[in-house]
Amino acid sequence: MLYLIGLGLGEVEDIGVRGLRIAKAAKRVYFEMYTSLLHGPNGGIPQLEALLGRSVIPADREVLEEKAADILEGALTDDVAVLVVGDPMAATTHSDLILRAREWNIAVEIIHNASIISAVGCTGLQVYRFGAVVSICFWTDDWRPRSFCHHIKENLKRGLHTLCLLDIRVREPDMKALMRGRKEYEPARFMTVAQAASQLVEILTTAAEDEPQENDKDCFSVDTLCIGLARVGLSTEKLVAGPLKSLVDVELGGPLHSLIVCGPLHPLEHDFVKQFALDSASFSSQ
Amino acid sequence: MLYLIGLGLGEVEDIGVRGLRIAKAAKRVYFEMYTSLLHGPNGGIPQLEALLGRSVIPADREVLEEKAADILEGALTDDVAVLVVGDPMAATTHSDLILRAREWNIAVEIIHNASIISAVGCTGLQVYRFGAVVSICFWTDDWRPRSFCHHIKENLKRGLHTLCLLDIRVREPDMKALMRGRKEYEPARFMTVAQAASQLVEILTTAAEDEPQENDKDCFSVDTLCIGLARVGLSTEKLVAGPLKSLVDVELGGPLHSLIVCGPLHPLEHDFVKQFALDSASFSSQ
Repeated sequence: MLYLIGLGLGEVEDIGVRGLRIAKAAKRVYFEMYTSLLHGPNGGIPQLEALLGRSVIPADREVLEEKAADILEGALTDDVAVLVVGDPMAATTHSDLILRAREWNIAVEIIHNASIISAVGCTGLQVYRFGAVVSICFWTDDWRPRSFCHHIKENLKRGLHTLCLLDIRVREPDMKALMRGRKEYEPARFMTVAQAASQLVEILTTAAEDEPQENDKDCFSVDTLCIGLARVGLSTEKLVAGPLKSLVDVELGGPLHSLIVCGPLHPLEHDFVKQFALDSASFSSQ
Repeated sequence: MLYLIGLGLGEVEDIGVRGLRIAKAAKRVYFEMYTSLLHGPNGGIPQLEALLGRSVIPADREVLEEKAADILEGALTDDVAVLVVGDPMAATTHSDLILRAREWNIAVEIIHNASIISAVGCTGLQVYRFGAVVSICFWTDDWRPRSFCHHIKENLKRGLHTLCLLDIRVREPDMKALMRGRKEYEPARFMTVAQAASQLVEILTTAAEDEPQENDKDCFSVDTLCIGLARVGLSTEKLVAGPLKSLVDVELGGPLHSLIVCGPLHPLEHDFVKQFALDSASFSSQ
């Protein structure tokens, strides 16, 4: 049996009672470590191993995507568990691994857990009032995608909030070292709310040649209310709300961060968001 | 301290290790029992109490909405826990209770868990490709809302999937008994995939006086691919995929059910959904 076990939002003890029991008893336990982050030193691995009372096999993108056969080896008769921060089927579906397992007649069980996708309810915004989720990627010198902004605008036109997942770069091969024949990895990078807000402000204030200049200003501007989220679900969670432009300078501490671009707030949403407004006096009058 | 603790998708052992520890030690533990359902006899309460090693106080809508003061009593000095199936902030935000607690300077901690909102990833559909969530309510003789269909169409026009949460009627006051001066409750009702599909088919095949007859047929028809989901995350989970009209007769067993109206599928989504297609031969050619 292949078990995909969600670990929740990043505290090692957010694993479920059932998930813990299965992981303790499994023949092999992999720990997926490239789409999210477990809280704690050394990527949370020592704490995770202490809780499980066993060692785990760290699995980066390469292992999960290219070495599925290794992971699934023996899973027809033994239990193999893959631990995934968040919900194992939310931000990344691991569909490939599951399809491969089923091809080989290996039963698959998914043990869900909290994901930022639904945990955004911690802002008091109603999950019914979110449109499609978008991802904001680190720009490079020659790759500066801005099309995600279109989806935010489409959501805003319908009065919907947008959850923006911010880029995570973990275990990215260092291309320069690779060219010298050495396999090394770049330092991990996690996009902050301030970086995401800066990117959005730049998109909104500079004209793109390939985009029609529609009535964007009506629905999305540097004054649109946004919420910066840091470490949702951890004891150090931090939320701030304010106009997009005010989040450019905000300092929310360590990863992971997310950003919400808000549609118009319902009265109860308004009362809740006001609790963590950067400027609660002016927030009342919005 | 007030703790809102998510229980996940309905197996009592889906509670997290941390949530279990807090609930065991709290002064009082309430169990919210009107927005979702814990798996097991008698609403799962006996199993829950066995796992916690203590009794819980069932809390219906009335208790949670009107008796917040009772719940919060003593929470300035003692720990009070409210257990909620799913994620405590997903389908219902419990914002009122939290705002009230903070007014009284009671600290609040939310322990997230799996919610259907993110667990829909079990279908292989990518969470990035979902638009706004809608709710489908039981129709009565004189109340037959159909406006939610508009949101599905808006999602489809953008190529997005729609998760439809299906109505749950638990602890609804029996109006006839109430008029005779007795407080009784109607039997619990849970909308099935078949009931939801029938309602959608009726909406799509009958003209509504108050709705413009736009080019609906282009985007949403009785032939649109839908997925019926039953008991997601439980060992008895069942998924079926087929044209909307084919789900009208489908029998998926006990609650909870949900329905997804699919936008166009990406190739990997297609391969995954095909696994549980009602008619996988014809599904290939869609």
